[in-house]
Amino acid sequence: MLADFEKVEAEDKDVLKADIKELKERLAALPQKLRDKKIPVLVLIEGWAAAGKGSLIKELISELDPRFYNVVSPVIVPEKESRYPFLYPYATAIPENGKILFMDSGWMEDIIRKYLHREITKEEFKRRVRAVNEFERQLRDGGYLLLKIFVHIDKKEQYERLESLTANVETEWRVTDEDLWQHREYDRFLDSYDNFMEKTDDIVPWHILDGSRRKMAVRDVLKLLVEGIEDVLEEGRYVGEPFEEEFPLREMPALADVDLSVTISDDEYKEKLKKLQKRLSELHNIIYRLKIPVVLCYEGWDAAGKGGNIRRVAYPLDPRGFDVCPIASPEPHELNRQYLWRFWTRLPRSGHICIFDRTWYGRVMVERLEGFCSEKDWQRAYNEINEFERQLTDWGAVVIKFWIHIDQDTQLARFNDRQNTPEKQWKITDEDWRNREKWPLYEVAVNEMLQKTSTKNAPWYIIESNDKQYARIRTLEIIVKALEKACEEHFARKVCKE
Amino acid sequence: MLADFEKVEAEDKDVLKADIKELKERLAALPQKLRDKKIPVLVLIEGWAAAGKGSLIKELISELDPRFYNVVSPVIVPEKESRYPFLYPYATAIPENGKILFMDSGWMEDIIRKYLHREITKEEFKRRVRAVNEFERQLRDGGYLLLKIFVHIDKKEQYERLESLTANVETEWRVTDEDLWQHREYDRFLDSYDNFMEKTDDIVPWHILDGSRRKMAVRDVLKLLVEGIEDVLEEGRYVGEPFEEEFPLREMPALADVDLSVTISDDEYKEKLKKLQKRLSELHNIIYRLKIPVVLCYEGWDAAGKGGNIRRVAYPLDPRGFDVCPIASPEPHELNRQYLWRFWTRLPRSGHICIFDRTWYGRVMVERLEGFCSEKDWQRAYNEINEFERQLTDWGAVVIKFWIHIDQDTQLARFNDRQNTPEKQWKITDEDWRNREKWPLYEVAVNEMLQKTSTKNAPWYIIESNDKQYARIRTLEIIVKALEKACEEHFARKVCKE
Repeated sequence: MLADFEKVEAEDKDVLKADIKELKERLAALPQKLRDKKIPVLVLIEGWAAAGKGSLIKELISELDPRFYNVVSPVIVPEKESRYPFLYPYATAIPENGKILFMDSGWMEDIIRKYLHREITKEEFKRRVRAVNEFERQLRDGGYLLLKIFVHIDKKEQYERLESLTANVETEWRVTDEDLWQHREYDRFLDSYDNFMEKTDDIVPWHILDGSRRKMAVRDVLKLLVEGIEDVLEEGRYVGEPFEEEFPLREMPALADVDLSVTISDDEYKEKLKKLQKRLSELHNIIYRLKIPVVLCYEGWDAAGKGGNIRRVAYPLDPRGFDVCPIASPEPHELNRQYLWRFWTRLPRSGHICIFDRTWYGRVMVERLEGFCSEKDWQRAYNEINEFERQLTDWGAVVIKFWIHIDQDTQLARFNDRQNTPEKQWKITDEDWRNREKWPLYEVAVNEMLQKTSTKNAPWYIIESNDKQYARIRTLEIIVKALEKACEEHFARKVCKE
Repeated sequence: MLADFEKVEAEDKDVLKADIKELKERLAALPQKLRDKKIPVLVLIEGWAAAGKGSLIKELISELDPRFYNVVSPVIVPEKESRYPFLYPYATAIPENGKILFMDSGWMEDIIRKYLHREITKEEFKRRVRAVNEFERQLRDGGYLLLKIFVHIDKKEQYERLESLTANVETEWRVTDEDLWQHREYDRFLDSYDNFMEKTDDIVPWHILDGSRRKMAVRDVLKLLVEGIEDVLEEGRYVGEPFEEEFPLREMPALADVDLSVTISDDEYKEKLKKLQKRLSELHNIIYRLKIPVVLCYEGWDAAGKGGNIRRVAYPLDPRGFDVCPIASPEPHELNRQYLWRFWTRLPRSGHICIFDRTWYGRVMVERLEGFCSEKDWQRAYNEINEFERQLTDWGAVVIKFWIHIDQDTQLARFNDRQNTPEKQWKITDEDWRNREKWPLYEVAVNEMLQKTSTKNAPWYIIESNDKQYARIRTLEIIVKALEKACEEHFARKVCKE
């Protein structure tokens, strides 16, 4: 792509000037239409150091009302200091409906710089390229207009620009050691950019601009933006199709086939609870020290005993190292972004445990059944979620998902108990009763979810919870086992490296 | 306070156990009531390293439903690396209505550690103590239940605990160099804690617990929390009274006395615009390099020309170093917190410019006139805002506030123009017409605001904007002058230090 890029010929200045004026006027009229149609736009501007990315953005925003856009320049956090998945700074920065976000360097520069600095391996590079494609597709399919621009200059041009910047005391500090290093390593960067762009061009294509022709680059990027927005306004917000993707899945029983009669005696419960909590407490120390992130997901029927279960897991943990995230209906600023955004923003730091009390699986349960999203949206979500969770486990996270399971009779008994006990009445709402009527519909949705998203890296566990004590012991056992395995693997990897 | 703290006598174990059980049960019933009454609770737990703050929090949350609380352990960012006001990590972390936040060390430890490390001067220490009192009062007056706990152990006890932690490989890493340093400097810490607590005890009082009596400490903190919450539930959410505070103010003319006939010729405009934008661009480089934060506030009549004015200021700036923050009506998650929270979260990093298109002054204008807050709330706000802005300028920020001013006839002409020009129609809404009818009421509110909040450190400028071009030149001149002054002062301070 870059390797065979040819410099463009200069064009007539007056024509260019007139073009730019006309495009800016067209652009100025578009944001309010984007707002009305609730379409978000992300413009990623990558390119060489000193290629003029900043000046381009300046021109793009010069006629825009500030209410409609934002500019971000993400800082690349060194791999060793990073406490989040590599996509985190980008996935949490996506614009909300009706806004334009200009990103001055993003995930591409992040990945390539770390790769060339040998902060990440070739294999990790490949995993990240895959994740980038997934991320970009999810944005596109979620109705985002995503424009990817690369501003290209050759080595000689870069030399001249860096030289002129360093010659002036007021601009000298803008040239970082990284920039100079990039210039020395120009050819390696060229190869890597080229390679990266080829591998990420299918889903959302790249547009390469000749940075040595400043005015033409301004015109071209304006044209891309204006035409891109005009197109999407005409065609309407895009809704992606469901797609096939292979994930290694674990076989799951149908809910109806689960034996819910299992129980535990009070004595055995007390003894095991104490032991498991003690062990979990020790493991929490270890995963904190090894900086292993842990994501525990709780879903289940109303009144299945999620809350009490979570409390037994949380009790032995050091409060400084875990969070419980209760997931309620999305707020407006959350609804206005791709649906996984509100989970990205809640991810734990490495070494921390996050317990999600309800999760992103709302997409394929309540949102599906209540029509809060389109059929395509929830059908696409199975694989989108599998991708998201693979990004988490690739980052090193332990991801465990519990379906806390009871039968309808047990639910009814617990609902009635709540209704009749004054201290518990707040726990039961009309909505719970309404949901109960939809049990059969939910059962279909839950079964489909369990079949399609119990991946080997992020498995589901159906927890029999007619006996709540039994359920608590089961979840604790599963968590303890998974954390032990993660710690062992961590040490094994360490030994291999040494 | 601490110096004369006497160790408490041991109490009967069985009684303690029963007390704790009873208090935990009472506590478990309270969160849903807090939620119903929309009262937020912040429990700050300070204390010595190894005093058992974490275990205390563990006990406090053991019976709480995770939907109702959060635990945070803010990381103390070294002064040199900090890009925000020192209160930023705490002011942005406050809980929303109906939630309990447990903070494991907070602003007190932050200030004292930096003071003892000589990262901040004695004078800065005093300023921070003042800011803490302001911050705590603002929370209290804004309806927060704030509980401040200090867990105390003596030097001998601390030695034994640190020793036993370091003796175990699984807990050894928990003892940081900072902790060991604190132990060596125990006496200096004791003095500083004591001093700090005495100076911050009047508005929200401290509660000292004897950390060497673990069970008793648990009982005491449970008691404080349960009784504190029960009291506030009975008395209802607190609304603070307006209060007097002296700020050095600049004299401001009444809006009616401003001469709006001033104009500028097209030629003079173009020439000055170019010059000022060039100068602003240079200054942006300098303030970026010197890490001076800049907060520009725009308020003004509808159709006064704020948008166009902001665009002229933004145009010469490097998009990587500034943000425009348009302030619309607060979203639910913003309404659910102290009203300044949504501005704290939008503050620029040091070295960056943030242009607020409408600001926190909404409190004393639209919120006052539309009854979105109580009379006490907006009357208190003048001084609360003065305090907030002083915290910004103490941090080193340049804070400039513009009232973009026009007369009623000009507004009418511009409204009509918007109504009659298809591309501009989106800019005019029914609400604009309704607000126009309230012009006299707004004029009273604006005059009062200008009189009460034009402090020397964060002055208001009334910008005559019947001639928009004149207004743009005026704001640019004021900004350029203020930034030049800030840079000069920065260098002067540097020379003094050397």
